[in-house]
Amino acid sequence: MTENGAPVFDAAFRAQLLELFRWRRDVRHFRPDPVPPALIEALLETAALAPSVGLSEPWRFVLVDEPAMRMAVRDSFARCNADALAAQPAERAAVYARLKLAGLDDAPCHLAVFADSTTTQGGNLGCATMPEMAAYSVVMAVSTLWLAARASGLGVGWVSILDAAVVKAALDVPVGWQLIGYFCIGYPAAESDRPELARLGWEQPRGAGMVVLCR
Amino acid sequence: MTENGAPVFDAAFRAQLLELFRWRRDVRHFRPDPVPPALIEALLETAALAPSVGLSEPWRFVLVDEPAMRMAVRDSFARCNADALAAQPAERAAVYARLKLAGLDDAPCHLAVFADSTTTQGGNLGCATMPEMAAYSVVMAVSTLWLAARASGLGVGWVSILDAAVVKAALDVPVGWQLIGYFCIGYPAAESDRPELARLGWEQPRGAGMVVLCR
Repeated sequence: MTENGAPVFDAAFRAQLLELFRWRRDVRHFRPDPVPPALIEALLETAALAPSVGLSEPWRFVLVDEPAMRMAVRDSFARCNADALAAQPAERAAVYARLKLAGLDDAPCHLAVFADSTTTQGGNLGCATMPEMAAYSVVMAVSTLWLAARASGLGVGWVSILDAAVVKAALDVPVGWQLIGYFCIGYPAAESDRPELARLGWEQPRGAGMVVLCR
Repeated sequence: MTENGAPVFDAAFRAQLLELFRWRRDVRHFRPDPVPPALIEALLETAALAPSVGLSEPWRFVLVDEPAMRMAVRDSFARCNADALAAQPAERAAVYARLKLAGLDDAPCHLAVFADSTTTQGGNLGCATMPEMAAYSVVMAVSTLWLAARASGLGVGWVSILDAAVVKAALDVPVGWQLIGYFCIGYPAAESDRPELARLGWEQPRGAGMVVLCR
């Protein structure tokens, strides 16, 4: 620790942090074990440590337990996923059909995350030029939650194959809230340092080498 | 480590990770010390460990060294920031004027980050319903880079008070790239566990308590 109490992060911590990034995963297979509510609460508090534009903290979290609401979300996923399968080019359809793209049936915890586009907190600082900054701030909170969850042994899966309007209506959230993502959270059935989409042959990670320009 | 090589994260690591989240900060004051190029390269590789929709890895990084390009970005910030100041309500204008909203003059490293909306990698999986997932994936990479940078003693500042079209033209990037953010990176002049916007009285963080609904 330094004079003003700032922590010093050493090489051992950085190595573990890199392991956390490497083993994070988007999880679609969960064990049924429940997640302690206090742990979820702590994760949401941690998520709120994320940076946000103008300190606007536009993240809004909805924990979804009600079976009818979960079913509405599941139905939206099933419809959108069937549409996506039908839209696949012939050479990818068989692989697509093999993918498991959501853990909605198994995950003990369902979390919908929204950006509140109507908040006055932050006085719109930094949003006049890039209004999408509110949504991006919420994504930063998701990233924070995801890493904290993985460090606690939990897996997180991001479901985006959804009709946002259907999800908003099912969860009865304010009209000014924008759906950022719907998340399955629970203890993962398995751990890996390779994305499931890579293991199942959908796509391979390519790293940063090809995507850096120097100007 | 477990049987398949998966790391086990213990309470000590989680406590340090929480400290990392607490002391991350959006930095606008930098020391002039240069950042080793190998460290920047490693940070970009780490950023590419972030999750991305369909494994599309749509992040594109542009390291900006050319003085004329930096000046064009700085000019865009100055114009947009003057507009934002002029648009402040009277009671906030004095506080706004006191804020330092970018470290563009001091930061040794400038990084522009884009989402490539034209990539075919990932086969559009997960984007048909929510095309904004490509941008969100890039924000996840930014979050990853930011945390890794802070763990290496570096500060990162996100500049969004910019005209994206001006930045794109100045950096001469492909038309299909969407600006996600422009980042100042360097060793911070000071460290704190309180956001600068809070210290200067612009806004106060409120935590997660008020923003969680249970359904």
